[in-house]
Amino acid sequence: MRLRNKPWAIKLVNEHPESVLQNPDPAKKINWDKRFADFSQPLEIEVGSGKGRFITTLAAQHPERNFVAIELQTTAAGIILRTKLEKHLDNLQILRGDAADINRFFAPNSTNIIYLNFSDPWPKTRHEKRRLTYKAFLSKYQEVLTPNGHIEFKTDNSGLFAYSVKSMNNFGMHFDFVSVDLHHEKVEITQKNIETEYEQKFAAKGNPIYALYASFKAK
Amino acid sequence: MRLRNKPWAIKLVNEHPESVLQNPDPAKKINWDKRFADFSQPLEIEVGSGKGRFITTLAAQHPERNFVAIELQTTAAGIILRTKLEKHLDNLQILRGDAADINRFFAPNSTNIIYLNFSDPWPKTRHEKRRLTYKAFLSKYQEVLTPNGHIEFKTDNSGLFAYSVKSMNNFGMHFDFVSVDLHHEKVEITQKNIETEYEQKFAAKGNPIYALYASFKAK
Ligand SMILES: C[S@@+](CC[C@H](N)C(=O)[O-])C[C@H]1O[C@@H](n2cnc3c(N)ncnc32)[C@H](O)[C@@H]1O
Ligand SMILES: C[S@@+](CC[C@H](N)C(=O)[O-])C[C@H]1O[C@@H](n2cnc3c(N)ncnc32)[C@H](O)[C@@H]1O
Repeated sequence: MRLRNKPWAIKLVNEHPESVLQNPDPAKKINWDKRFADFSQPLEIEVGSGKGRFITTLAAQHPERNFVAIELQTTAAGIILRTKLEKHLDNLQILRGDAADINRFFAPNSTNIIYLNFSDPWPKTRHEKRRLTYKAFLSKYQEVLTPNGHIEFKTDNSGLFAYSVKSMNNFGMHFDFVSVDLHHEKVEITQKNIETEYEQKFAAKGNPIYALYASFKAK
Repeated sequence: MRLRNKPWAIKLVNEHPESVLQNPDPAKKINWDKRFADFSQPLEIEVGSGKGRFITTLAAQHPERNFVAIELQTTAAGIILRTKLEKHLDNLQILRGDAADINRFFAPNSTNIIYLNFSDPWPKTRHEKRRLTYKAFLSKYQEVLTPNGHIEFKTDNSGLFAYSVKSMNNFGMHFDFVSVDLHHEKVEITQKNIETEYEQKFAAKGNPIYALYASFKAK
């Protein structure tokens, strides 16, 4: 969804180039080693963070890991940035750019987990290629993830969920965890569920929340 | 679910050995060629047919295919049989027995489609092996299906659906069709959906109906 432009957020982003990379040139290597206090920590990426409730909560809970929030919209990036500054999250960087370049922003085998939370559903068949679980995206995630890495995908959108189950299966991915009612089922997940803004909104309406964790098996 | 015993149904089953195979010895070959009017027609099997609304409707719509309903309960078998006799469904046979022996009841590569409709969920972890999508069952279906054959699975049970998605994926199956809201989505399926008794009941309550069609890829 498009947020209304907030001038304060855009201004804040422009004032903090040390925290937000704005539309980096995909042809140039990003010096992540200079952007994190401790670059040796394992890296996790969220694609399409929105206002950032999920990734800022996770970063606060896990100072021993590094996080990057990729987000297209400057206003959203500014809202994430405000929380990062308030909570002194030195282990969180923001990349204001397009996840279609994820494999050029990050080195191969550099990432443990990629989070896809409530991604835009793009319901029309002719927009299939824009879905963040389309095979061309999966192929880029595979490059960036470590061999033991995995994807954690959540959505309230039944069409996008069914599509993603099929797309990840057809790509040869291995399913580690599946739920079609995350909030009402006894489920075994590796870490406590952190609700995103969208998740709070749609769960409050009574919509089921779908989840799929999957990894790339050695081919 | 267990049906209450109906004496008329049990009597009817006993009177029609040409239509119902009762608890056949898995060690002995079944002469399916003598049980169907035209044995050269392609075969499809439903596992756990209940009262048989699905399989009798399908058999009536497709006289050019053969069908077998496998069902544990004699009363259920009798109810299916009554419909078979009323509608003169010469292309439908009933096997009153346990699907755990499916690979001994049928020859390898003999079946085009296996239907699993609203199978008992067996929610407790210690009952996992009884679920009809447990890997030991998948392995038997694989034996019986033709190389181009597939499974069509429907349920209203979120736990069994999530389990089955993971189980079939982990078994290496290829997903051909996935829906988490079969009744409210525009979906492309190969044949018009036929509602089972359970499907009618649970859809009327507003439950979503989940569906998964999957095949065994050459290993
Ligand atoms: C529906 S919102 C969900 C936001 C948040 N994850 C949540 O669950 O509340 C999707 C977000 O993804 C962002 N987005 C969509 N496509 C993107 C892309 N290709 N690269 C980076 N961000 C993207 C959008 O700008 C939007 O903020
Ligand atoms: C929940 S009912 C669903 C009936 C029907 N398919 C429907 O959708 O209305 C499950 C049925 O499967 C049968 N069943 C369960 N396990 C079976 C097995 N191992 N072999 C054959 N039938 C089985 C039960 O007797 C019961 O009639």
